[in-house]
Amino acid sequence: MLAAHPDDEVLGMGGTLCLHAGERGDEVRVVCVTDGSSTQYPDDAEIRERKSDEARRAAAVLGVSDYVHLDLPDMRLDTVAHADLNRIVEEHVGEVGPEVVYTAHPDVNRDHRALFDSVAVATRPTPGQPVRRVLTYAPASSTEWTPAATNWFVPNWFVDVTATLERKLEAFACFETERRDYPHPRNDRALRAHAEFYGASVGCEYAEPFVLVRNVEPA
Amino acid sequence: MLAAHPDDEVLGMGGTLCLHAGERGDEVRVVCVTDGSSTQYPDDAEIRERKSDEARRAAAVLGVSDYVHLDLPDMRLDTVAHADLNRIVEEHVGEVGPEVVYTAHPDVNRDHRALFDSVAVATRPTPGQPVRRVLTYAPASSTEWTPAATNWFVPNWFVDVTATLERKLEAFACFETERRDYPHPRNDRALRAHAEFYGASVGCEYAEPFVLVRNVEPA
Amino acid sequence: MLAAHPDDEVLGMGGTLCLHAGERGDEVRVVCVTDGSSTQYPDDAEIRERKSDEARRAAAVLGVSDYVHLDLPDMRLDTVAHADLNRIVEEHVGEVGPEVVYTAHPDVNRDHRALFDSVAVATRPTPGQPVRRVLTYAPASSTEWTPAATNWFVPNWFVDVTATLERKLEAFACFETERRDYPHPRNDRALRAHAEFYGASVGCEYAEPFVLVRNVEPA
Amino acid sequence: MLAAHPDDEVLGMGGTLCLHAGERGDEVRVVCVTDGSSTQYPDDAEIRERKSDEARRAAAVLGVSDYVHLDLPDMRLDTVAHADLNRIVEEHVGEVGPEVVYTAHPDVNRDHRALFDSVAVATRPTPGQPVRRVLTYAPASSTEWTPAATNWFVPNWFVDVTATLERKLEAFACFETERRDYPHPRNDRALRAHAEFYGASVGCEYAEPFVLVRNVEPA
Amino acid sequence: MLAAHPDDEVLGMGGTLCLHAGERGDEVRVVCVTDGSSTQYPDDAEIRERKSDEARRAAAVLGVSDYVHLDLPDMRLDTVAHADLNRIVEEHVGEVGPEVVYTAHPDVNRDHRALFDSVAVATRPTPGQPVRRVLTYAPASSTEWTPAATNWFVPNWFVDVTATLERKLEAFACFETERRDYPHPRNDRALRAHAEFYGASVGCEYAEPFVLVRNVEPA
Amino acid sequence: MLAAHPDDEVLGMGGTLCLHAGERGDEVRVVCVTDGSSTQYPDDAEIRERKSDEARRAAAVLGVSDYVHLDLPDMRLDTVAHADLNRIVEEHVGEVGPEVVYTAHPDVNRDHRALFDSVAVATRPTPGQPVRRVLTYAPASSTEWTPAATNWFVPNWFVDVTATLERKLEAFACFETERRDYPHPRNDRALRAHAEFYGASVGCEYAEPFVLVRNVEPA
Repeated sequence: MLAAHPDDEVLGMGGTLCLHAGERGDEVRVVCVTDGSSTQYPDDAEIRERKSDEARRAAAVLGVSDYVHLDLPDMRLDTVAHADLNRIVEEHVGEVGPEVVYTAHPDVNRDHRALFDSVAVATRPTPGQPVRRVLTYAPASSTEWTPAATNWFVPNWFVDVTATLERKLEAFACFETERRDYPHPRNDRALRAHAEFYGASVGCEYAEPFVLVRNVEPA
Repeated sequence: MLAAHPDDEVLGMGGTLCLHAGERGDEVRVVCVTDGSSTQYPDDAEIRERKSDEARRAAAVLGVSDYVHLDLPDMRLDTVAHADLNRIVEEHVGEVGPEVVYTAHPDVNRDHRALFDSVAVATRPTPGQPVRRVLTYAPASSTEWTPAATNWFVPNWFVDVTATLERKLEAFACFETERRDYPHPRNDRALRAHAEFYGASVGCEYAEPFVLVRNVEPA
Repeated sequence: MLAAHPDDEVLGMGGTLCLHAGERGDEVRVVCVTDGSSTQYPDDAEIRERKSDEARRAAAVLGVSDYVHLDLPDMRLDTVAHADLNRIVEEHVGEVGPEVVYTAHPDVNRDHRALFDSVAVATRPTPGQPVRRVLTYAPASSTEWTPAATNWFVPNWFVDVTATLERKLEAFACFETERRDYPHPRNDRALRAHAEFYGASVGCEYAEPFVLVRNVEPA
Repeated sequence: MLAAHPDDEVLGMGGTLCLHAGERGDEVRVVCVTDGSSTQYPDDAEIRERKSDEARRAAAVLGVSDYVHLDLPDMRLDTVAHADLNRIVEEHVGEVGPEVVYTAHPDVNRDHRALFDSVAVATRPTPGQPVRRVLTYAPASSTEWTPAATNWFVPNWFVDVTATLERKLEAFACFETERRDYPHPRNDRALRAHAEFYGASVGCEYAEPFVLVRNVEPA
Repeated sequence: MLAAHPDDEVLGMGGTLCLHAGERGDEVRVVCVTDGSSTQYPDDAEIRERKSDEARRAAAVLGVSDYVHLDLPDMRLDTVAHADLNRIVEEHVGEVGPEVVYTAHPDVNRDHRALFDSVAVATRPTPGQPVRRVLTYAPASSTEWTPAATNWFVPNWFVDVTATLERKLEAFACFETERRDYPHPRNDRALRAHAEFYGASVGCEYAEPFVLVRNVEPA
Repeated sequence: MLAAHPDDEVLGMGGTLCLHAGERGDEVRVVCVTDGSSTQYPDDAEIRERKSDEARRAAAVLGVSDYVHLDLPDMRLDTVAHADLNRIVEEHVGEVGPEVVYTAHPDVNRDHRALFDSVAVATRPTPGQPVRRVLTYAPASSTEWTPAATNWFVPNWFVDVTATLERKLEAFACFETERRDYPHPRNDRALRAHAEFYGASVGCEYAEPFVLVRNVEPA
C-alpha cells in the first residue's frame, strides 16, 4: 500500500486499511515515499520527524506495524527520475510480494501522479507478478480538488467501513499538523460526511471509494 | 427548471431552487414531465394526486409557486417520441424565456436521459435563444447509482446552499411516499452528508453540485 | 448472468462460466432474453427451437443446468419498453439473489445496450441489494466491431481460463448455426487467439476480459 | 454516403462530396433517409417535394447524380425500429459496395444518432465487407450545438476543399427553405468561416473536418 | 489571467480581456510566465525585450495596464520544478485576489500543461480561496494542433466579443514577430474566422470559446 | 517512423513496416531515440552494441536499411528536456520529409509518452508541413499493460499484414535479448495471437492495430 505523503493513506483509506490490518489480520506494509514536509518547511528535521511520528502513531491505531517512511522530496516528485521512483516501488513489491496494491489517485497533486506512474510500472501483469489487484484511493483534500475535465475518479469499487470508521477518525486525530477546521476536508466532520456520502451511495452506513485499475483472477 | 419525476428537483437542487426563488426573487418555473407513479402504481389516480400534492407543497416550501405537473408516463419516457417531448420542453422555454435551465443529469435513469436529450434540443444556441446557461443537477438516489464508465457527473459548478439547506430538508420532508431509511440516499442524514461532502470539497458548509452544459456570456 | 442472444454467454465468457459452474460449483443461472432468431428468420419456430437447443447443450457442456430462454424479439430490444425489460431482469435478480451479475457489454449491438441499461437499473446498490458485483463481458463478433470512439471496452478485469478454455471451445461447437469460417471471429481459431491475446496481456496462458461496473466489498 | 436530412450532406461535407464526385470521378451515391419535413410540416406533400427538389439540385451542383431520397419520418427516427433502419442501410451498402461510407456525426440530433447506429451495424468489418473506411461529418447547425460533455466531434481527419468550397456554397444556395441569416450557421458567411477555421487549423485555405470511425488497409 | 507566452492571451482571449479591462473596468492582471523567446533565440536579450514590448503594447490596446512578464525559460517549463511554478502562481493569486482566473488550455504545448497544473494547485477551492471561477482559453496555433485523442478542448463557455473583436485584431497586430501568413492561424483572416466559427455556433457575430474548470457560486 | 526502444517498432508494427519497405518500396527511416539498455545495464557498451545490432538485423529482415539509433537514456526520457527531444524529432522530420509518421502509443511506458509529445510538436499541421498522417502503434508488452482508465488505445486503423506476418516473426527472432517465454507477450505464439485477434476483428487473417492521430487529405 503506497502513499506519497504522511496522512494520504489515512485520509483515503484508513477504514479499509484497518479492515485489512486490524480485522482480517492481513499482512500490510504502508510505504510513504516523501518526507511530507520539505517544501513547506525546508531543512526542518524536527517537523519532518514530527510528521513521521504522527504517521506511525496513526498506522498503529489502524493495526499497521510495518510502516516505511522514505525521504523523497515532498511536492517535488516531478524532480525525481521516473526510473528511480520505479526502482523504489519495485523493491517494496519484490520484498512483500503483495496480492493487492493501493496507491493514491493520480489527481491534482503531481506527487500522486508520479507515484501512480511508478506503481503502474511495478505492477505490470507479467508472468510471475505477485500483484493481482491494483486500486487507487482518494486522499481527501486532493482528489476532489482536481479540475473536472481531468478528474477520472469515478469510483467503481467500494468498501463498507462501518466497522472501522471510528478508528479511521481516531487515526487521523494523530495528525495534529494536518487537521484544518471545517469546511476544509481534513477534520472529523468532513471525513464522516465523506464516508456517509459514499456509504449511502451503495447501501451501507459508511464506505470508502476506489477506482479499480486491474484485477486478475487466478483459475 | 425541469424534472422528470416529482422530487428530482428537491433531491438534486432544492437548496439552489430556494436561493433563486426564495432569496433572490428570481422568476422560477418547475416543470415535472411525468406523473411520477404510473409504472409502480398503474391506474391509481389517488397516488398520482398524492405525489403531485407532495411536490407542490415541497415547491411552496422552497418559494416556488409556478409548478407544472404533466402526465407523461413515469419510467417510460423511452416510449414517448423524442419529437413530442421536444415540443413540450420547447413550449415551456418559449413561454417563460428563461436565462438559465436546469435539468436532471442523464444518468442511470432513462427518463432523465430522454429529458436531457429534449432539453439539449430546446436550448440550442440559435440566434434569439433566451437560454444562456444550461446545467444538470444530480438527483440523489439516481446519479450516484450510474455505472461508473458511463457516469460523467464530475461536477464543475457548485452552489453554496448553506443559507437554504434546512429549507431543502424541510421541502423533502413533504415527500412522505419517497423517504427511505438511511443508508438509502433519500432522507435527512444522507442529504445532509451529500451537501457536506460537496461543501467541504469547495470550501463552504453546504453545497450542491452541477455540471455546466453550456454558458453564453453576452457582451 | 445475462445474455441477449444464445451464444453471447459462450463467446464472451464460456471459460469463466465453466469455472463458476463446473469447477467451483457456484450456483449459476443463465438468462437469455431474446429468441435469437426472429429478425433473421421471422416466424420460424424450428430455427428458434434449434438455437435454444444449441444453447442448452452448450450450457450443459459448461456445467450450467439453470438455463432460461425468454422470447423477446431478437435485434429488436429497442422496441421493448425499458420498464418492461427492467421488470424481467429484476424478477430474475429477485429469484436468484446473485452476488455477481455478468452482462454483455453495451457495444455496437443495440440489444446489448438495452440489456445493459436494464441490468444497471436492476442492480442499483440500494440497501438490501444482493448483487455486490457487476461485470460486462465481450461477446466475440460484437464488442470488437464497435466504432472506436464509442467503445469503452478497455478491460480492467481478467479471469484465467487456462483450465476451461477447451470446454469453452467444445461448448461453442454446439452452435452449428453460429459458426463461421476464420477470419470471422466465431470459430475455434479466433476464439483461441482471443484467449491467448488477453492471456499473454496478463501473464497466463488463456484469459477472458471484463469491465468492472461496480464492486461493493462488505465489511 | 448517408444523410438523415436533405442538406446534412452539403452542410457537413459538400466540398468533399464535390471532390469525390466532381473532381475525382468516384462513383457516389447519396442516401437521405428521412423526408426532411414531416415533423415541421405534417402531411404537406408540397414542402416535402420542394425539399427533395432542392436536395437534388444541390447534389447536381456537386456532381452527384445518384441521389436517393427515402421517406422515413423526419426528427422521428427514434420511432423506427433499429432493425428496420439497419436493413435499409444494409441494402444500399449491398447494392453499391462502397469502399468509403460517410455518415452524419451522432450529435445533438437524434436522427443522426439513429442513423449512425445503423451505419455501425451495416459496416461491421466482417470477412467480405466492401466498406474499408467509415467517417462521420459534422452538419453545420447541429454538431456544434451538442452539449459539450457528450460531444466527441474532435476531428482527426481533414479534407482540403480549397478547390471546391465555392461549389459547396453554390450547392447550399439551392436550399432556400434552409438558409438563415448570419449569425445562424446556415449561410455563406458562416459556412465560409467554418471552412477557414478548419483550414487554418491544418494549413490549407479551406478544409472540412471528419472523425474517423474505422479504416482497414488491405495488404 | 495567466499566459505561458507573450501573445497567448491575445490569441486566446483578446476580445474577452478587452471586455473585462476596457468595457467593464474590471481590475485585470496579465502574467506571462516565460520569456517567450529563449528556446528559439537563446541569449538574445534584444528579441526578448522586443517580444515583451510587443506584449505590453498589445495589452495596452486591450485596456490592460497591469502586465507582468516573468523570465522562466520558453518551451522549457518542464524543466522548472512544479513546486517552483506553483509558488509563482500562488504569489500572484495571493497579491491580486482575483475572482476569475483564465489560463491557457493544457494542449499540445507542454508549457501550457505545466502552467495549467500550477494554476490547478493555486486555485484549489480551500476555505478562503478568493478565486471562484477558473477557465481555460485556446491560444490559436496551439490548441487546434493537439492530437485529437488527447484534446479535451470542447468548449462549454462562450463570450460574445462582437464589441471588441476589432480591438483584439489591433492588439495582435502589435506582435510583428508572431504574425504568419494565412493559412497559418496567426493573422487577421484566421482570427476573424475563428471568432465567426464560434460566434455562429452560439448565435452571436463573434465569440471566444473557453472550457470551464470550476465555478463556485456564493450564497 | 519513430521508436523509443529497439524492438518497439517490430513488436508494434513489424508487419506494416515490411509492407512499406519490402512490398511497396516506400522510403522508410526508423529512428530509435534511446540506447535501449542503459537503465538495466548502465555503462555496458557491449550490451548497448548488441541491442543495436539486433535492431539493425531485424530492420534488414523487414527491408529497412535506413535505421538510426540514437543514445538518449533508456527509460529516462523524462529527464531529457522536452525542447531537446523536439529538436531531434524535428531534424529527422525535416531531413526525410515523410508523408506518414508512426510513433509508439503514449502508454504505461513514459519514454513512449515523452516521444509522443515530441512527435505531436514536430508534426503540427502548419502550412508547409510534409507530414499528412500520424498514427500510433502498440508495442506488445507495453500498451496492453497500461492502466485501463488511462489507456486510450482503442484502435481505429488496421493494416492487413497477412503477407508479412512471418517476416515480422523472423525479424523479432533477431532480438535474442528481448524474447521471453509465453505467456509473456514477447514471443512467436503471443505475437501471432495478437495478429490473429486483430485480424479476426476486421476480417483478415492477420492485422496490426493503430490509432489515427491526424490525417490531412490534400485536394
